[in-house]
Amino acid sequence: MNEDLFAAAEVIGIIAFAVSGGYAAVRAGMDWLGVVVLAVVVAVGGGTLRDLLLGIEPVWWVRDPDMLVVATVTAVVVLVVATLHPQSKLDSWRVVLYADAIGLATFTVTGTSIALEQDVRPWIAIIFGVITGTGGGVIRDVLVRRKPLVLVGEIYALAAIAGGVLYVVLRETELASGLAAAAGAALILVVRAAAMRWHWRLPRFSEPGH
Amino acid sequence: MNEDLFAAAEVIGIIAFAVSGGYAAVRAGMDWLGVVVLAVVVAVGGGTLRDLLLGIEPVWWVRDPDMLVVATVTAVVVLVVATLHPQSKLDSWRVVLYADAIGLATFTVTGTSIALEQDVRPWIAIIFGVITGTGGGVIRDVLVRRKPLVLVGEIYALAAIAGGVLYVVLRETELASGLAAAAGAALILVVRAAAMRWHWRLPRFSEPGH
Amino acid sequence: MNEDLFAAAEVIGIIAFAVSGGYAAVRAGMDWLGVVVLAVVVAVGGGTLRDLLLGIEPVWWVRDPDMLVVATVTAVVVLVVATLHPQSKLDSWRVVLYADAIGLATFTVTGTSIALEQDVRPWIAIIFGVITGTGGGVIRDVLVRRKPLVLVGEIYALAAIAGGVLYVVLRETELASGLAAAAGAALILVVRAAAMRWHWRLPRFSEPGH
Repeated sequence: MNEDLFAAAEVIGIIAFAVSGGYAAVRAGMDWLGVVVLAVVVAVGGGTLRDLLLGIEPVWWVRDPDMLVVATVTAVVVLVVATLHPQSKLDSWRVVLYADAIGLATFTVTGTSIALEQDVRPWIAIIFGVITGTGGGVIRDVLVRRKPLVLVGEIYALAAIAGGVLYVVLRETELASGLAAAAGAALILVVRAAAMRWHWRLPRFSEPGH
Repeated sequence: MNEDLFAAAEVIGIIAFAVSGGYAAVRAGMDWLGVVVLAVVVAVGGGTLRDLLLGIEPVWWVRDPDMLVVATVTAVVVLVVATLHPQSKLDSWRVVLYADAIGLATFTVTGTSIALEQDVRPWIAIIFGVITGTGGGVIRDVLVRRKPLVLVGEIYALAAIAGGVLYVVLRETELASGLAAAAGAALILVVRAAAMRWHWRLPRFSEPGH
Repeated sequence: MNEDLFAAAEVIGIIAFAVSGGYAAVRAGMDWLGVVVLAVVVAVGGGTLRDLLLGIEPVWWVRDPDMLVVATVTAVVVLVVATLHPQSKLDSWRVVLYADAIGLATFTVTGTSIALEQDVRPWIAIIFGVITGTGGGVIRDVLVRRKPLVLVGEIYALAAIAGGVLYVVLRETELASGLAAAAGAALILVVRAAAMRWHWRLPRFSEPGH
């Protein structure tokens, strides 16, 4: 993936996850600074986990602090919008989910790409893509005390895995790496959107009485 | 500890924690992929924490991806069993606890052994053993939103500490290191089994009204 | 900051967070060993996060295990006091909050100082100060299953940011670095105490029905 495209994907992912984290915080009744903190943590969380596990240190937002600025500015915008349009909170979970889907799509591909550069096996690289794409959302859900989205029956990690596999396979072909990345991200986005639109779910176990 | 024995202990620990994490996910009403994800995360979680804190990077399952394969296969077996025998869910917490005990026993000893190789003091190595043995279970309990087992009155971390101490002490003797490891793990398993069988508990504070 | 002063600040922070974590565990009905574990984890948690993210490894309490001893001894004192004076539990949340404020003040400043030594930009160093100061409390709140204090409307991270900024600015002046550190920590403590005394709160969003 060429550098400009990669940077663009990172910025899109940061903005999307900051929106997702910020709205989740608004919904959970957090304070203004808490909204900013959660937005930033969700935006950088997946990539931070990836860097720690791969041993790339210091982690990415220390090497590239502009990403923190992008996340913070996004969080402030969420704050203003949520304050001026309190009725938007009624739909806030939908905003969280769609923003999360965009972040999942871009970060899964950039995360896979970064892991491949560390010379891990392709299927391990895909796992790192999934960690990068889902990590922020897991942190978000633990901090607002919901069951992590990735674990509760939505077609979610599966979409990320599918996109990661497509990206890795297409990279091996003649295709420009940018196109491979775009195709992988698009697949994730389409699968997630379809899953939300038509309520596709993975089979899930019922909770027995405790 | 010789290499073959060490590898065998790791595989046993991986399988045990994957069963524990998988059944906990089944019990919590997660979906099929969530069961696999939680099983794998619980299986590799303790060792991952250990490697991050000691600065051994990339973490162990990147260096030895076969462990992920073992965890995933175990998770799929859990999935099939839980689907074919839904009544097994009635007893699922017992399965979680016994599998957890086996994982605790093996991972505490392997974790202590890995930390000793990093030239930390023996009592710090035992702490790393306990982190390796209990870390996966803490992650499991946070993600299924239970109070972590290690914190609520079961004889749990105490069993790990006892086994870690025994292992470190026996290593200093003429005893073959494999025997020292086996003795440490056996002590943990016996103490945990006895604690569960006869409901041994540490004194615990009552929860005041909020 | 000279070395003796730095070491003193670390010890104060460790004791304060161990008290905070220990009392939170007592309040949550945990067992004796759970109280010790939570006290130690809260005491070393923020600095551990900082070291992992900056790539300083092994983490600080492996390099300086005396800190673990201080945390453990403090935890045992909490245990004895809570057992002998069960009525103290009625006020336990107040103890958690004030001890947390002291730890927040000292660790924010020591964390900022450590990050500056790694040659990160000053505003990134302040973020690491805030992570060091608030990290232990976030871990505490997740493990006892409360919404993290940092996210719910108390003037909390804001106090840490203010103190971090003051410390960084004063370091640039002729002032001795020890005085700069003391001023930063004092500001955090005063702001937190005033916020608790007069119930200063940041504006916070109301929770909509789910």
